[in-house]
Amino acid sequence: MKIGRETTPKTAICTSNEHTIVVRGQDLCQDLIGQTSFTDYFLLLLTGKQPTDAARKVVDATLVSIAEHGFVPSVQASRMTYAAAPDALQGAVAAGILGCGPVILGASETAGKMFVRIRERMNDGTSLDDAALAEVQALRAERQPIPGYGHPLHKSRDPRVDALFKVAREAGANLDFIATAEAVERAIPQVISKELKLNVSAAIPAVLLGVDFPVSALRGIPILARTASLIAHLSEEAEQPSGFALSYQATQNLDYTGETPDGYTA
Amino acid sequence: MKIGRETTPKTAICTSNEHTIVVRGQDLCQDLIGQTSFTDYFLLLLTGKQPTDAARKVVDATLVSIAEHGFVPSVQASRMTYAAAPDALQGAVAAGILGCGPVILGASETAGKMFVRIRERMNDGTSLDDAALAEVQALRAERQPIPGYGHPLHKSRDPRVDALFKVAREAGANLDFIATAEAVERAIPQVISKELKLNVSAAIPAVLLGVDFPVSALRGIPILARTASLIAHLSEEAEQPSGFALSYQATQNLDYTGETPDGYTA
Amino acid sequence: MKIGRETTPKTAICTSNEHTIVVRGQDLCQDLIGQTSFTDYFLLLLTGKQPTDAARKVVDATLVSIAEHGFVPSVQASRMTYAAAPDALQGAVAAGILGCGPVILGASETAGKMFVRIRERMNDGTSLDDAALAEVQALRAERQPIPGYGHPLHKSRDPRVDALFKVAREAGANLDFIATAEAVERAIPQVISKELKLNVSAAIPAVLLGVDFPVSALRGIPILARTASLIAHLSEEAEQPSGFALSYQATQNLDYTGETPDGYTA
Amino acid sequence: MKIGRETTPKTAICTSNEHTIVVRGQDLCQDLIGQTSFTDYFLLLLTGKQPTDAARKVVDATLVSIAEHGFVPSVQASRMTYAAAPDALQGAVAAGILGCGPVILGASETAGKMFVRIRERMNDGTSLDDAALAEVQALRAERQPIPGYGHPLHKSRDPRVDALFKVAREAGANLDFIATAEAVERAIPQVISKELKLNVSAAIPAVLLGVDFPVSALRGIPILARTASLIAHLSEEAEQPSGFALSYQATQNLDYTGETPDGYTA
Repeated sequence: MKIGRETTPKTAICTSNEHTIVVRGQDLCQDLIGQTSFTDYFLLLLTGKQPTDAARKVVDATLVSIAEHGFVPSVQASRMTYAAAPDALQGAVAAGILGCGPVILGASETAGKMFVRIRERMNDGTSLDDAALAEVQALRAERQPIPGYGHPLHKSRDPRVDALFKVAREAGANLDFIATAEAVERAIPQVISKELKLNVSAAIPAVLLGVDFPVSALRGIPILARTASLIAHLSEEAEQPSGFALSYQATQNLDYTGETPDGYTA
Repeated sequence: MKIGRETTPKTAICTSNEHTIVVRGQDLCQDLIGQTSFTDYFLLLLTGKQPTDAARKVVDATLVSIAEHGFVPSVQASRMTYAAAPDALQGAVAAGILGCGPVILGASETAGKMFVRIRERMNDGTSLDDAALAEVQALRAERQPIPGYGHPLHKSRDPRVDALFKVAREAGANLDFIATAEAVERAIPQVISKELKLNVSAAIPAVLLGVDFPVSALRGIPILARTASLIAHLSEEAEQPSGFALSYQATQNLDYTGETPDGYTA
Repeated sequence: MKIGRETTPKTAICTSNEHTIVVRGQDLCQDLIGQTSFTDYFLLLLTGKQPTDAARKVVDATLVSIAEHGFVPSVQASRMTYAAAPDALQGAVAAGILGCGPVILGASETAGKMFVRIRERMNDGTSLDDAALAEVQALRAERQPIPGYGHPLHKSRDPRVDALFKVAREAGANLDFIATAEAVERAIPQVISKELKLNVSAAIPAVLLGVDFPVSALRGIPILARTASLIAHLSEEAEQPSGFALSYQATQNLDYTGETPDGYTA
Repeated sequence: MKIGRETTPKTAICTSNEHTIVVRGQDLCQDLIGQTSFTDYFLLLLTGKQPTDAARKVVDATLVSIAEHGFVPSVQASRMTYAAAPDALQGAVAAGILGCGPVILGASETAGKMFVRIRERMNDGTSLDDAALAEVQALRAERQPIPGYGHPLHKSRDPRVDALFKVAREAGANLDFIATAEAVERAIPQVISKELKLNVSAAIPAVLLGVDFPVSALRGIPILARTASLIAHLSEEAEQPSGFALSYQATQNLDYTGETPDGYTA
């Protein structure tokens, strides 16, 4: 690489001099500290604009919906990591965040991209239901899962779905992506001969895309939400440890399927 | 370990059945989604209680104060990681969080613990200034730094300090730890013969401890704040890459101090 | 989930009782400590078998080839993280490893999977060159990059490529995947009208697949190799810090493209 | 910071030009690939010197001793992370490494530093046993644990300890730090009225310091060793998943100690 346009880093988020920190065009100390909530500041950082009321309400609701669900795998990973390395809280949080991948929390992003593709299929006049059906068929043809639908336990919709949709409606958000998400739900039985209901990972992008939340940051919602929850779990872990107990319980039933040396007894 | 009290994991944060997710005693879908802000929910998760107005205002202000300061080392690490592994946003966020250690962002926790020790020194009637002086002398004797004081560039206080103190005063927070922080600032010149002004890492615990924020979660404030900012940076990185450019610039001036084989020319 | 086959964790790697640790069927203390090299042990852990001489030589060569290349982005990220959090070496190593993604180091895995697909295309009698051409055309049609080919600086092959191929030949490894890699190199100009030479990320799977190294662990080679190098860098960082200097240099040329408040001067 | 000595990054590990990669003064492609084992290369990277036979044997033995011990917490954290984010192997390895903290694997470093302090106490003619006793008493006075001694299950020494000591003796390593480690073992009952036997975390630095392994890299041994093992576990996880099963088992016994809303039944 040579010095030039491509080798000069660029950013529109923040600059500063000795006296002033400028964030998205505003003076951090004069205009923002004490005058904006963390949710609004997150949206300002992300989009460069003051959020609308609808955006704030929807983003708050999605963060609240996904932050906590008990001793899920990433919380276990985080608490075990903290038990082993309690002087590095940041490492235990990082371990928990690393589980925000496509199988679980990252499905929000994958589902959001699917909704965007469906809307694009409608550009030539295709109806919503036809576009949703075509998308589900295309995923099926490539043996891809339908992200954000179905649940290991529940046959009915996750209750968080309707709670989020209600927030979006009452906040006056654009509801096109909720309609899209529900069209996918209707299309699924036509393609795979069983129902898979909307889960929270599809509901999150369905409401966020209606308030112009950027697709490239969709996975950020579960990451930010879980960070808050992980800090709470690790503060509890510091007072009342469970990390090693979780690890102990996890191997009470364990099949060793390898060989053993002569004379070894379990 | 044997099965028993110590080997049973415990938590008071969340439980659920097929229909209901309970968080800190409340029904997530009925009572929380759409009815609580993310900041309030974070405090509910962490403390088990609804935050006071003062707590919400102070916590929002600290999160806003520390979230963003441009291309700091942890943002650079995160953007470089994203450039190399763009399909794993969670990994790039984790890389950025891992820099929330004692030297930079984690100083909030170390400073907070120092303030708590100073208050404890006052239990026998010692005055605030004497307790602060004794603590600074003790740190000096152990050749420890005084966490949260001094700045590589500024001789005067970081402007974020007064912005945070103003929020605490106007919110009606307990101001004892601000007084403690200022007593340390006065004590320092008596011990080390120069002034080191309060920086943002001391101001954060000074205001948080006045709203009963738990000491064990102090490092969580910069971690949560930076997570929001990292998501914004990575969303920008996805559109307008700087990660490799930063890496390129970083080594434009580089001293190789090792040996080279015969005939090698740089 | 219910208790049952799918909810019981399984492993064939290790078991132990109070006196004996069994790894892959052998007694760790009696049979392995002092009697096996780390490379052999890695291969035993991974495959469950004692490695052949060819496998050991090829794996050693790949680890040596990819471990170190100076202040690359992941080393910079790691050293910056260590500078900020020096009490958590594991966090700084983790930050460096998180850059082993598809764009840079993870290309070894992507290239390896491409070679496997080309060999599969030959199952019906298609010639190697036709199979390689078809694969390159298919990638091109999907607008995918050809992983492991081309280099920002070099027009000729990276010198590590021939060094690795020489090791494989001299060790008596199966050379089919080297032939495959070179067939891709020949196919590329037919599809994209320019030459892209084999780089080290394609050479690594080309030699590893010839000694039955598992495809699912290909990305493990750069990860393991870089871990060794990161430990060396962090040990140097502890003695002679560069982390913050790298960060400082990185932003000497920086374009702020956002707005500023009235009266602000850079 | 200004441009100058402190703001110029420095390294003695690696440099390169268009044709040659120089590592620790040698030509990577000519002198190292195919001619050095990974263990030797790790030591060359770390120390800048070709390792002695004793150093290689001892380092190999320590890496083999600590790499694997079944479904320990960090392996569980890593497999759970992989189950949730299988496209980012590097993230799952990172999650596992993040558990190499002071409580478990990092004790190697803490113990090594203790041994160094004991040798320093001998500089004025104090005997080894007196120096060890004084150190144990000092740790006790500060309510610090004695790192690397005692085991939750075993009353006798971990069998890996004698295996490592045997390797050091047979390799002709300096045995001073083994003697130091055993002096600590003798001193402990005099201070705390019970025996705590040497465990593997004390044996590792005891043998490594006898081959001039740098103290600043002691924690690197468990980190590098575990990385190899984590790659093996994740390759197994890709074929035979256990991550979610571990998480399921971990919460089969779980006490929820918080409140529930009216009418909620578990």
